[in-house]
Amino acid sequence: MANGGQGMKVCIVGCGAVGSLFAAHLAQVDDVEVWAYDVVQPHVDAINQSGLKLVGEADITGAVRATSEARELPPCDFGIVATKSMYTRAAIEASSHAFAHGAVASVQNGVGNEEVIAEHVDRVIRGTTFPAGHLTEPGVVHMDARGDTWLGPFEPRPASMDAVTELAKAITAGGMNTKALADARGAQWTKLIFNAATNPLGALTRLTHGRLCEQPDTRRLISQLVAEGKAVAESLGITLDSDPDELVDHAAKVAYEHRASMLQDVLAERATEIDALNGGIVRFGAEQGVPTPMNEAIAALIKGLERCGRRP
Amino acid sequence: MANGGQGMKVCIVGCGAVGSLFAAHLAQVDDVEVWAYDVVQPHVDAINQSGLKLVGEADITGAVRATSEARELPPCDFGIVATKSMYTRAAIEASSHAFAHGAVASVQNGVGNEEVIAEHVDRVIRGTTFPAGHLTEPGVVHMDARGDTWLGPFEPRPASMDAVTELAKAITAGGMNTKALADARGAQWTKLIFNAATNPLGALTRLTHGRLCEQPDTRRLISQLVAEGKAVAESLGITLDSDPDELVDHAAKVAYEHRASMLQDVLAERATEIDALNGGIVRFGAEQGVPTPMNEAIAALIKGLERCGRRP
Repeated sequence: MANGGQGMKVCIVGCGAVGSLFAAHLAQVDDVEVWAYDVVQPHVDAINQSGLKLVGEADITGAVRATSEARELPPCDFGIVATKSMYTRAAIEASSHAFAHGAVASVQNGVGNEEVIAEHVDRVIRGTTFPAGHLTEPGVVHMDARGDTWLGPFEPRPASMDAVTELAKAITAGGMNTKALADARGAQWTKLIFNAATNPLGALTRLTHGRLCEQPDTRRLISQLVAEGKAVAESLGITLDSDPDELVDHAAKVAYEHRASMLQDVLAERATEIDALNGGIVRFGAEQGVPTPMNEAIAALIKGLERCGRRP
Repeated sequence: MANGGQGMKVCIVGCGAVGSLFAAHLAQVDDVEVWAYDVVQPHVDAINQSGLKLVGEADITGAVRATSEARELPPCDFGIVATKSMYTRAAIEASSHAFAHGAVASVQNGVGNEEVIAEHVDRVIRGTTFPAGHLTEPGVVHMDARGDTWLGPFEPRPASMDAVTELAKAITAGGMNTKALADARGAQWTKLIFNAATNPLGALTRLTHGRLCEQPDTRRLISQLVAEGKAVAESLGITLDSDPDELVDHAAKVAYEHRASMLQDVLAERATEIDALNGGIVRFGAEQGVPTPMNEAIAALIKGLERCGRRP
C-alpha cells in the first residue's frame, strides 16, 4: 500500500488475468492504494500473503489488498471492472457501494459492459485494453502481451474528463500506457469488430488465426462480419481507430499460431463472451436498423456450442 | 446369384452402409445378380465368404459377389453409386468400364454426383434415398431406418425412362420401395435442403436435432439456410416434394435425439460431404445468380473444421 489513505484508492473488480495486470502495475505507483475484489479464494489469499506477481512481459510484484467479500471494500476513488463480460452485473451489483463517490471504468471485452455498470454507478468510464495475460498459479499472472489502454467518459453517465485523465495518468505511471480520450468509442469498436470477426471463427473451426486468414472462404466470412460491424459503428457515428480488416491481416502475420481465447472457453465448457461481442453488434445493429445476419448466425452457433454438454 | 447371366446384373459401387442396403435387398430378387465394388477388403472378404447380412430394420442375407478390384467387374446393366460424395469421382473412374452398355444411378447425399458420373457414363439416373444404416462388422450392416427411394433420368445425360423403371421395380421387388419419376429433382432437392440446413449445424454446435430446433436462434438460422436453398431450387424450376422447413419441425418431434452424421465425421476427423450439400447449393446458386451467403458461411466453417488437425 502506498499510503495511509490520502492518495488515490483504486479497486480492481474481477482480479483475474487482465485485472491483475492493472492491479500489479497500479500498485507500483506512490500514493495509489490498490484493492482487488475477486471470488477465487486461493488467488485472493495468495495476493494477501505474498503480493500480486507478474511474470512474462512484466516482472513486478504489487502490494494489493484482496478480498472475496465485497462488503469489506472501502470507499474508492476509482473502480476498474475486468471480469469476463457475463459476470459484469453480478460483480458491480456486489461492489457498487464502494464507488458511491468514485468513478468506474470497464476494461472488458466487447460492448454493453458500461451500460450495466451505469445501472449501479453514477460516473462511468468507457475503456478498452489490449494487454493480455493468464493466471499461472494463485497470486501469479503471466503477462502475455503489452499494449495500450484507452479510457473516455461513458456518454450517458459520464465520469468527468478530469477523473478519466487522473486514472489514465495513474495507470500510465504504473507502467501500462493509457490514453484519456473525449470519445473512446472508436478504440472500443475497432477492437470489438476485430474480435467478433475472428474469435468465434477460431472457436467454431479450431483453426489458428493464421490458418483462418489464409483460406479464402473463412477469410471472406471474416470480412463479411467486419463489414456488418463497420456499418453498425458508422450508423452510431463512431470513427474507428483503424480498419479492423487490416488488423486481421496484420494479426495473420504477427500472430499466425494464435488460438482464439473463445476456443479455450469452448473446450473447457465455459461460457463465452459471445453476447458482448457478436451479440453486442447484433443488439446495436437492431437499435440502429442495420442488418447483421452474419453476426447473428455466428452468435447462434456459439450459443449452440455453449448449450451442448448442458441439458435443456 | 440368381442365374447364369440371363437376368439383370447390378453393381453397387461403394458398398458401405447405404450401398449394402441396396445390395442385400436386390440379391433377394430372382434373376438379379448383384456385384459390389468396395475398397474395404475385410468387408469384401466377409461378403464373399458368408453373404451380405442386414440386421435391425431388415433381417436378410444376400448372395453378393464383392471385389475391391474394379477390373474384375463384369459388364453390368445397372450401377448404383453409393459412396460418400467426395469419393464419387474415384469410384466411377475405376468402375465405369462395367457400365459401357448400362445405366448408372446415384443414391448419394447432396447434389453434383450425377454430374461427375456423367463424365464417365452415357446413361445416368438421378436418385435420392432415405433408408440409413451403419456397418457393425465386416459383412454386416444394421439398417437404422426404412424409407423410400426416388429415381429419374439425369436430364443432361439421361438413362431411358424404361431403364429407370426397370431398376426401380427390381429394388422394390427386393423390399425397398422405389419410385421412378420423370423428374426426380424435387425429391433430391427437398432432401438436400433439409440436410444442408441441419446436418452442418449439428456438426458445428454438437447439439441434437431437437435441441437445435427448440432454440430460436439456431432455428432461425436453419430457416435462413432453407430459404436460400428454396430460392435456388425455384430458380432451377424445381418443384420441391415438401417444404423442408416442415420436415425440420417434423424431425424435431420424431428424431429429437438424432445427432448429425456430419458430427460423427468431424469427431472422427474424416472429410465431410459439405461440398455436395451446402457447397452444392452455393454452386448452383452462383450459376443461377441467386445469393446464398448463409450456406457459403456454413460451408466455410465446416471446411475450416475439416482442415483443423491437418497441417496446411
